[in-house]
Amino acid sequence: MSDILVAPESLTARKKRRAQQSIVEAADELFRAHGFENVSVTDIAARAEVGRTTFFRYFGDKAEVVFAHEQQLLDTITEIASHESVETAHTPAKAIDQLEPIVLELCAKASANADGYVLHYELIAKHPELRARDALKTQLIADTLSDLLIARGTEESVAIFAAQIALACAQTGRRRANNPHTLVADTRAAFEQVQLRA
Amino acid sequence: MSDILVAPESLTARKKRRAQQSIVEAADELFRAHGFENVSVTDIAARAEVGRTTFFRYFGDKAEVVFAHEQQLLDTITEIASHESVETAHTPAKAIDQLEPIVLELCAKASANADGYVLHYELIAKHPELRARDALKTQLIADTLSDLLIARGTEESVAIFAAQIALACAQTGRRRANNPHTLVADTRAAFEQVQLRA
Repeated sequence: MSDILVAPESLTARKKRRAQQSIVEAADELFRAHGFENVSVTDIAARAEVGRTTFFRYFGDKAEVVFAHEQQLLDTITEIASHESVETAHTPAKAIDQLEPIVLELCAKASANADGYVLHYELIAKHPELRARDALKTQLIADTLSDLLIARGTEESVAIFAAQIALACAQTGRRRANNPHTLVADTRAAFEQVQLRA
Repeated sequence: MSDILVAPESLTARKKRRAQQSIVEAADELFRAHGFENVSVTDIAARAEVGRTTFFRYFGDKAEVVFAHEQQLLDTITEIASHESVETAHTPAKAIDQLEPIVLELCAKASANADGYVLHYELIAKHPELRARDALKTQLIADTLSDLLIARGTEESVAIFAAQIALACAQTGRRRANNPHTLVADTRAAFEQVQLRA
């Protein structure tokens, strides 16, 4: 009886989360053991004990598994946007003030598992295809930040600019040291150096 | 006899430029006629009247042909760096002052052929693989700008930050309107809004 009382969305969501988790873990193990280029989607699906159809339900391709965490970060932004109710930022300076804590939260989440962070960037550095995907995901984060500001009423041209500057600060933090232990502090330092004209 | 007097590098360089040009033109025509996904490297090589080996001597893969122009822009930065002798920028503000005219020059070159610019971004928008490659090329431009500052004596952490902010301005120009006729003005407007603390 108790099963019937659980909302079907909740079960589906849990099943989805577990399947994604198994796929990511299986892929991580296989990439480390054999190298990204020597592992196929079939290998990953077999190790995760799911079918190829299930794999492709959750991930567009093999590279997408590497960026499962980035996808979660994008979901974090959407979550923040739907829960928080803040006043509209009408100037670039106010808009970037709204983005700074969100970007620092993303940096904190991205670097929380320091060893995982280092392995992630080591893997990306080795493969041009993954470097390209990483650059795209990074721009997607900026576009999502811009959309968040627009949803709060900020004018589009102000939102685009503030989001790109926020991305520049995050990229600076990553590129200066690419150290998970100082990522948040390095990114905050970059934000502190920027001033925007009203 | 006159052939012997021509430096071999010059002949090789001209041959290379002509082969690259034919490949880019052949690819452009085929992509427009049949769609990017339906054209193979073999098709492009055949239309350009070169072998596949020649194709791969100049381009890493099919997507790379789409970004031949971006590669030329990277070469432009290197050229500027080798010809110009300027004083070292020791602050982010001075560093970005040095990058602004270079970025505006890149924008001018990128948008000089307005129709080509529009077609280029229409093609990219349709293909996730090309969007990823575009994002990577864009980051490569920022890294090259950073290297240029470092070569001029700017401290690495200042150079990285200034290059990322310069990239943010260029991306803002592109994203606000993505109009080849206003790209330079839109990008200049973004630079005018940024101030950096010394």
